[in-house]
Amino acid sequence: MHTTVEEVAALVGGRFTGDVGNTRITGVASVGDAQKGDITFFGNPKYLPILRTSRASCALVPEGFDEPITAIPIQVANPSLAFSRVVEQFAPAPVLFEPGIHPSAVVAASARIGEGVSIQAHAVVEAGAVIGDHCIIGANAYVGHEAQMGADCHLYPNATIRERCTLGQRVIIHSGAVIGSDGFGYETVQGRYTKIPQTGTVKIDDDVEIGANTTIDRARFGRTWIGEGTKIDNLVQIGHNVVIGKHCILCSQVGISGSSKIGDHVTLAGQAGLVGHIEVGDHAIVAAQSGVSKDIPAKEIWFGSPAAPMRDQKIILAHQSRLPKLHERVKRLEEKLAGEKAE
Amino acid sequence: MHTTVEEVAALVGGRFTGDVGNTRITGVASVGDAQKGDITFFGNPKYLPILRTSRASCALVPEGFDEPITAIPIQVANPSLAFSRVVEQFAPAPVLFEPGIHPSAVVAASARIGEGVSIQAHAVVEAGAVIGDHCIIGANAYVGHEAQMGADCHLYPNATIRERCTLGQRVIIHSGAVIGSDGFGYETVQGRYTKIPQTGTVKIDDDVEIGANTTIDRARFGRTWIGEGTKIDNLVQIGHNVVIGKHCILCSQVGISGSSKIGDHVTLAGQAGLVGHIEVGDHAIVAAQSGVSKDIPAKEIWFGSPAAPMRDQKIILAHQSRLPKLHERVKRLEEKLAGEKAE
Amino acid sequence: MHTTVEEVAALVGGRFTGDVGNTRITGVASVGDAQKGDITFFGNPKYLPILRTSRASCALVPEGFDEPITAIPIQVANPSLAFSRVVEQFAPAPVLFEPGIHPSAVVAASARIGEGVSIQAHAVVEAGAVIGDHCIIGANAYVGHEAQMGADCHLYPNATIRERCTLGQRVIIHSGAVIGSDGFGYETVQGRYTKIPQTGTVKIDDDVEIGANTTIDRARFGRTWIGEGTKIDNLVQIGHNVVIGKHCILCSQVGISGSSKIGDHVTLAGQAGLVGHIEVGDHAIVAAQSGVSKDIPAKEIWFGSPAAPMRDQKIILAHQSRLPKLHERVKRLEEKLAGEKAE
Repeated sequence: MHTTVEEVAALVGGRFTGDVGNTRITGVASVGDAQKGDITFFGNPKYLPILRTSRASCALVPEGFDEPITAIPIQVANPSLAFSRVVEQFAPAPVLFEPGIHPSAVVAASARIGEGVSIQAHAVVEAGAVIGDHCIIGANAYVGHEAQMGADCHLYPNATIRERCTLGQRVIIHSGAVIGSDGFGYETVQGRYTKIPQTGTVKIDDDVEIGANTTIDRARFGRTWIGEGTKIDNLVQIGHNVVIGKHCILCSQVGISGSSKIGDHVTLAGQAGLVGHIEVGDHAIVAAQSGVSKDIPAKEIWFGSPAAPMRDQKIILAHQSRLPKLHERVKRLEEKLAGEKAE
Repeated sequence: MHTTVEEVAALVGGRFTGDVGNTRITGVASVGDAQKGDITFFGNPKYLPILRTSRASCALVPEGFDEPITAIPIQVANPSLAFSRVVEQFAPAPVLFEPGIHPSAVVAASARIGEGVSIQAHAVVEAGAVIGDHCIIGANAYVGHEAQMGADCHLYPNATIRERCTLGQRVIIHSGAVIGSDGFGYETVQGRYTKIPQTGTVKIDDDVEIGANTTIDRARFGRTWIGEGTKIDNLVQIGHNVVIGKHCILCSQVGISGSSKIGDHVTLAGQAGLVGHIEVGDHAIVAAQSGVSKDIPAKEIWFGSPAAPMRDQKIILAHQSRLPKLHERVKRLEEKLAGEKAE
Repeated sequence: MHTTVEEVAALVGGRFTGDVGNTRITGVASVGDAQKGDITFFGNPKYLPILRTSRASCALVPEGFDEPITAIPIQVANPSLAFSRVVEQFAPAPVLFEPGIHPSAVVAASARIGEGVSIQAHAVVEAGAVIGDHCIIGANAYVGHEAQMGADCHLYPNATIRERCTLGQRVIIHSGAVIGSDGFGYETVQGRYTKIPQTGTVKIDDDVEIGANTTIDRARFGRTWIGEGTKIDNLVQIGHNVVIGKHCILCSQVGISGSSKIGDHVTLAGQAGLVGHIEVGDHAIVAAQSGVSKDIPAKEIWFGSPAAPMRDQKIILAHQSRLPKLHERVKRLEEKLAGEKAE
């Protein structure tokens, strides 16, 4: 398939100037990979030098962009967002899962299945489960006893939802994710670790997305709770009784220990770890690989292991890099002073 | 359902004083979440200020506790343990898996299945596998050729046990965990990585619990070995030929490289990483996110990346935080000395 | 079974001297675990003290090795490689998966299945998928719509390959791995995170091995790409549009954020994390737990969080460990100078 500069500009509500001749756009690509015929976009200032001489035929750029580039620029309010719409034009049709229950799926008689639901091959839906309208339950996925999900949820293949967990509407659970595994809790009884029953559940609110192989433990009692609109990447661990607010971003391999509370609009960057029983305020940001062992006030940016406010850490880091010089300076002072004495 | 202060005290062997009127207990909750009618417990000194004014109607507290609190206190030896018993009273009945083999399960004719075993929908049990009495094999779980498990094991849905691995009694394997994947071993042959056959197994002893999506690699030869009573959290990685002693705690996202040996009663906190071929002594503790590249003697607490004894690290960290001041002090000394010279 | 020193030497093309009597070799073991009758190997200088008094009856050692040891030494060019061949002699026969489609597998009519393919119980192969000759699709594994794999691939149980991803020849995917989950990308639209469609794929080249529960996200557009011969351990996260070169080693729990490019022959040690949009040059090495936020030139070794060249970091670390002393020295200088003034 192909399209034209005019058609793209119309699609994304963008603006271009000059004569674009009969330039044909035949594909989409990143700035670095683009070839003749491709459309690309400018979303990261880092790539400006590459964009200048890119082979792309066309580029979506922000309004007011006036750098000279080889590609034909189309100005739009949000180039990345606009690019997504172009990408969809070129993308193969998404896989459709027809409503209906595959004959190999095992669905308990007492499960309540909404309208237009698709239950794929070898999926298992246990007794008392409630599946909202237009949900898709992927192949080999598991929905435990009395688990509930609202309309338009999508469980990808091999996902696991344990008993009594609840999902809101439009929740996406990627392959291999496990929702509602037992929390990690033991009492020491006569020198042995004895399992503390984990009788609570996990509650996931509307529009949450949970990445592949992420694990969210059920509560010891009450519930582990993921707030509306929060997005969780792959291989993230969320301990029992953790509460995460609305519209948070948890990047890959983040770990949150039991009973910690995360506010709204919080960002936890990749591989960050939080101990249990702490609170992170609204709009706080935790940098990648940080190890947080204290409460973080709202809007602060923390970094390091152990983590501390970014501004303090930057000062420490700068001083650390000057340590070899500092040692030198102290040595010179000592020599000077010894010399004076000797004089 | 509901209960009374008297009934709770009788259940947990606790003691309360004064007139409790007809206080009804209708639910369980943490100190911070508790409302009227709830019973809570005091297990972490951090929550004392919240407990003082908690809305809970009743609280399990340690013996000798004499703080004034709003809730009716019941004194017990171990409030957390006692609370678990109360929680179970209020918890919904646990899901029961009836003995029997689901018609959709695929169980090899040569597998030996004990008494009272439950094999759920779409589970696969391969030739020569041995399943002990009263085991539960969850939906979509996989038990490989000649794998063995003792009595009362529980494999949750989508767990994988590869061929010839062995589990003791009462072992719990959570969803998505993989036991017996190939160890990560290659030889460089003519510039290419060539797979080293991983022909060993994994041996898991009695009363071990293994978290969701944790991976334990089979040995190159011999066995990777998890000792009795050890508890492993979610998303942990254990390399080939690792040996872990008895009654250890491995928190989430810990990684242990090949052939390392962990003693008994060791605690590895979240996201800690250990290189291969080292030994960690009995009762040692590795703090969260530490990176261990050396042997750790018994009973020591190590921290940091690279890890070192906690006492040394604390001194270094304290000195680091004073670095800006130290730079200042050196600068002043230099000025002073320059000034003297100039005098 | 058992073998003799002569037979082992012949098998591995090794050399031994002296009279070995009728020494029988009845098993294989590591230096530390070996007992009488076992053969072991010397691959790590660290184990030399243990080897000297090992109970092993025989040991594979490098050419020119002349330490006195208790075991009968057989000299070979590569003891570890040679040992693998001995191990295979003693190993139980590998599990064989007969060609054929298990009656419980669900294979779409439009899928193209090569010769000698084995599709195990409850596996699902979707419409338009292409499975090369002699592939093994494990139990409960999932192959999505139009996914393709070359000859001799092995998907272990519970692995997931999402739609349109492509695998070369001889690719091994371990249990629980997820190939082609959606990349983690959102636009903020009116204060809410809005999903950016992830319409690309994952391309995995020949001879790649991917560990248990590892996740590789599909590209936003174009492809996430893993180069020929690269080996990836368990629980690794690879973000959308990442490109990894040939013959790389990614150890367990490594995380690579979106759009980063890794050269050929790169080694990323355990738990290392890389931010998005950076490049790592050929033959570079990133040490364990490092946090990389900048490009790394070819052949460099980086370490730390934030990561920097190893040689610089070592200097900083050395200076850090001398910080307590430095504080002392500055204090003494201050006292001296104060004393002089007072004189």
